[in-house]
Amino acid sequence: MSLLFTDAPALRLAARAKGFSSPTAGHCPGRTQANMVFLPASHAADFRAFAAENAQALPILEELAPGRTEARLAPGSDVRFDCPGYVICEHGRTREAADLSEIWREDFVSFLVGCSFTFEQALLAAGLPVRHIETGVNVPMYRTNKMMTPVGPFGGPMVVSMRPVPAWRVSEAVLVTAAFPQVHGAPVAVGAPEALGIADLSRPDFGDPVDIRPGEVPVFWACGVSGLSALMTARLPVCATHAPGKMFVTDASENDYRRPVVAPSAPGPSPQATT
Amino acid sequence: MSLLFTDAPALRLAARAKGFSSPTAGHCPGRTQANMVFLPASHAADFRAFAAENAQALPILEELAPGRTEARLAPGSDVRFDCPGYVICEHGRTREAADLSEIWREDFVSFLVGCSFTFEQALLAAGLPVRHIETGVNVPMYRTNKMMTPVGPFGGPMVVSMRPVPAWRVSEAVLVTAAFPQVHGAPVAVGAPEALGIADLSRPDFGDPVDIRPGEVPVFWACGVSGLSALMTARLPVCATHAPGKMFVTDASENDYRRPVVAPSAPGPSPQATT
Repeated sequence: MSLLFTDAPALRLAARAKGFSSPTAGHCPGRTQANMVFLPASHAADFRAFAAENAQALPILEELAPGRTEARLAPGSDVRFDCPGYVICEHGRTREAADLSEIWREDFVSFLVGCSFTFEQALLAAGLPVRHIETGVNVPMYRTNKMMTPVGPFGGPMVVSMRPVPAWRVSEAVLVTAAFPQVHGAPVAVGAPEALGIADLSRPDFGDPVDIRPGEVPVFWACGVSGLSALMTARLPVCATHAPGKMFVTDASENDYRRPVVAPSAPGPSPQATT
Repeated sequence: MSLLFTDAPALRLAARAKGFSSPTAGHCPGRTQANMVFLPASHAADFRAFAAENAQALPILEELAPGRTEARLAPGSDVRFDCPGYVICEHGRTREAADLSEIWREDFVSFLVGCSFTFEQALLAAGLPVRHIETGVNVPMYRTNKMMTPVGPFGGPMVVSMRPVPAWRVSEAVLVTAAFPQVHGAPVAVGAPEALGIADLSRPDFGDPVDIRPGEVPVFWACGVSGLSALMTARLPVCATHAPGKMFVTDASENDYRRPVVAPSAPGPSPQATT
């Protein structure tokens, strides 16, 4: 990786000036990164409820009031310009854009949604691999066969990110990331991509493929690009997200989102499902 | 499963009377089950140090003084008779036995070592499958390519038990069992049996094979049969263990071994190993 930002305001300003349009994984170690969802205020309540129903995929870190463009988590920011890329979604059809000036409206509400890039420094600190950072590519992301719980017009398949982990170290990856529930937390699935409806790991739906080395298994975390999935399902006349992998980098410390790990003690959703 | 003991003293007495010689998984829900290691007092210090070095495989729950046969965790017990089966190991060669009367010596020290059967009720309570209980067979156990840290004459490959878990629920299995560090805790490995040196899951080294259904991945926990592996490596003139899967069932509650889950924050054994 040639250029590595360590300062979040500097990265945002570079993106705003169109001098930086790359994925943000590995940049600004220790800073909380966010997915963005932009939509008209008339749909904000539905989206807020939808995100709450699907909180592992869409943990809301901050919601900006209609027309507001500066995030509390990133003083001086402008959410319309400070991601290295955007996706505009009109009636379910998507196109990339460098910023949101073309479609911005005063009634737009902006949501910051937790991103798993936030816990990647904790994985690296534990000696675990983060292949897409090692190789300087975007994280691979996949649509799954798991449908999110719908609310109003929002629904669609959950999207996951994938990081290969040595089989001997999967528990560590689970425990390290379980400590960050607001940035997707523990993996939603491990191994068996076919069980997730992923036909070919080498052809991700978003981002770039990465090598899975001998002895490694694919580990899948819920991904905030599930928000784009929800917008494509909703087919609103106009709405937008960040471009997958090109996050809004905040000034918040990753440690602000670190929580004690709690072992599930309550029964799961279907206590007898497996007998 | 036709006969299911719920009372630990009753199971021990039935084993003592030779009326019960089956694997103990699923029996006495909520009770702590233990692997047993029996050896001459002259080797007890080495084994104690060896177990401490390999604590995930060999967590010692109790050590009986030389010649003692009643465990504190199981009042009224006789460790020479109360397992449903034993393995005697002489100069590294093994044979099964119904009890230890033939080889018992007054200088024998008995170790109770944590067993993953203890957390199986917690897995079931979370709605996770325990296939060998469902199907009434012994848990499958495998020698791995991971060599334990040797101390004195003790060493050899770590043995693991395997339970298939749906890919979507592996994190739950990790978090549920991480709460029981003294009965092997979180899995030592997930998926990729070839990375563990396991050539064929359908041919376990101990116990019985179980089906892995579509969408499930094999999850591996450290197993106290690693103690047998260590005795076979040590080639002592005479020593013994319980028979794999036929545990010493104590009166202790599984909850006595429940601990808060702690996310690893310190660097792992090889922080740069993956780069």
